[in-house]
Amino acid sequence: MKKMGKVLLVGAGPGAADLLTLRALEMLRAADAVVFDRLVSPEILDLAPPAARMIAVGKAPRCHTVPQERINEILLEQAREGLTVARLKGGDPLIFGRGSEEAAYLRAHGIDVEYAPGITAAQGAAATTGVPLTHRGLATGVRYVTGHRAHDARLDLDWQSLADENTTLVIYMGAANIAGIALELMRAGMPANLPVLAVASATTAREERLLSRLDRIGTEIAARPMAAPVLFVIGHVVSLCKDAALPLSLPAVMACE
Amino acid sequence: MKKMGKVLLVGAGPGAADLLTLRALEMLRAADAVVFDRLVSPEILDLAPPAARMIAVGKAPRCHTVPQERINEILLEQAREGLTVARLKGGDPLIFGRGSEEAAYLRAHGIDVEYAPGITAAQGAAATTGVPLTHRGLATGVRYVTGHRAHDARLDLDWQSLADENTTLVIYMGAANIAGIALELMRAGMPANLPVLAVASATTAREERLLSRLDRIGTEIAARPMAAPVLFVIGHVVSLCKDAALPLSLPAVMACE
Repeated sequence: MKKMGKVLLVGAGPGAADLLTLRALEMLRAADAVVFDRLVSPEILDLAPPAARMIAVGKAPRCHTVPQERINEILLEQAREGLTVARLKGGDPLIFGRGSEEAAYLRAHGIDVEYAPGITAAQGAAATTGVPLTHRGLATGVRYVTGHRAHDARLDLDWQSLADENTTLVIYMGAANIAGIALELMRAGMPANLPVLAVASATTAREERLLSRLDRIGTEIAARPMAAPVLFVIGHVVSLCKDAALPLSLPAVMACE
Repeated sequence: MKKMGKVLLVGAGPGAADLLTLRALEMLRAADAVVFDRLVSPEILDLAPPAARMIAVGKAPRCHTVPQERINEILLEQAREGLTVARLKGGDPLIFGRGSEEAAYLRAHGIDVEYAPGITAAQGAAATTGVPLTHRGLATGVRYVTGHRAHDARLDLDWQSLADENTTLVIYMGAANIAGIALELMRAGMPANLPVLAVASATTAREERLLSRLDRIGTEIAARPMAAPVLFVIGHVVSLCKDAALPLSLPAVMACE
């Protein structure tokens, strides 16, 4: 009987290759096939075995080169060939990664799934900027939300719930909608001068930062667009940016100032 | 002139040694001194160089063996000896880790600080249980809050804001207060039958799980206390536990059922 393959849902982390977990690296090295998203960096793809099949599925905002249903099928087809398939996703596969949808599909078809969690972009941005996600007296918790919906559907977020000054709010995939998001948050009671830190390509050599505030982030990001992926850290913790700025060893980094 | 030391704020992740990042491992291996919390597992401490000074500061819920002010001083003293000091913390140093307080103190005294982010317990629990932190149609975002306050101060959480069924709520350090937390969430509108998954020592050989619901978690956890650290995942994503349960290779694991 042919050996049944399996699928390893692997978090590639925010970008820098050394932010992979040891488990993620081990899974990647064990792969016969690697199915990867557009946002996974070349340095990380280079860690796969030279003989592994490399299958790009090119997922990106507004540009799903391969639809999710087809990605599911590709994973199933590869596993049914008896291969160990690494499904490599930016960040953590169980945070905005649709990893659990892929896992449910595969398990329904009898394929075993294992996970390696990954450092999510908010954590990567915190580590490079020194802006913590929680801090006594400034934020008792942290919240991640997406700033876009499939097919440009309306953002149906609970603005009253989001407008909690004691919680750091991190918006993923929100560059296109940040002006509207900021406006809704102010309407729901967040102060206009609440600091906002936009971080693009966190932890990579292409990292860019923009320090702003809620009432200005929309116009400022429009005036100087940042390359995707961009995330927005909103909250009083951002006020620590100046003191907490790391020595900037990265090229092309805009310092928080 | 004596070489100035530095402090590496290193996330040890949720427990399993293979969930360290490559950067964290590299920093740990470069350390002359390791200052670590009680929750960091022995397997991870074993990765430090044999010659490194190992300094336990024993931080634990309700039991700060070494007060934070003294931890700050220890880090400073070690760095001033010219040592590379790894400050090893469970999870991520910038999520509930007080890493940013230590960093601010050290920088104010002229000591360089670098970070290695870590997989936080919520991500570890997601990876072992297969319960995602977000999932289309079940949760558009995720939120981490602490369920305790220093010196047993009153939990001043914004219950209305927390009572958002579309956001997965993860309570850290909440075992002592979970009955009251669940009650406040129900008062604020969360349904009594909202599923809750308690996970203790996620990703370690001691991992335990308890599947419950908002109106029962208080009595159920009282009837069968779990060893710290325990986290609670509250939200509709927990309904995926049954289908998403991983093959349980860990000993002493209570299956979601």
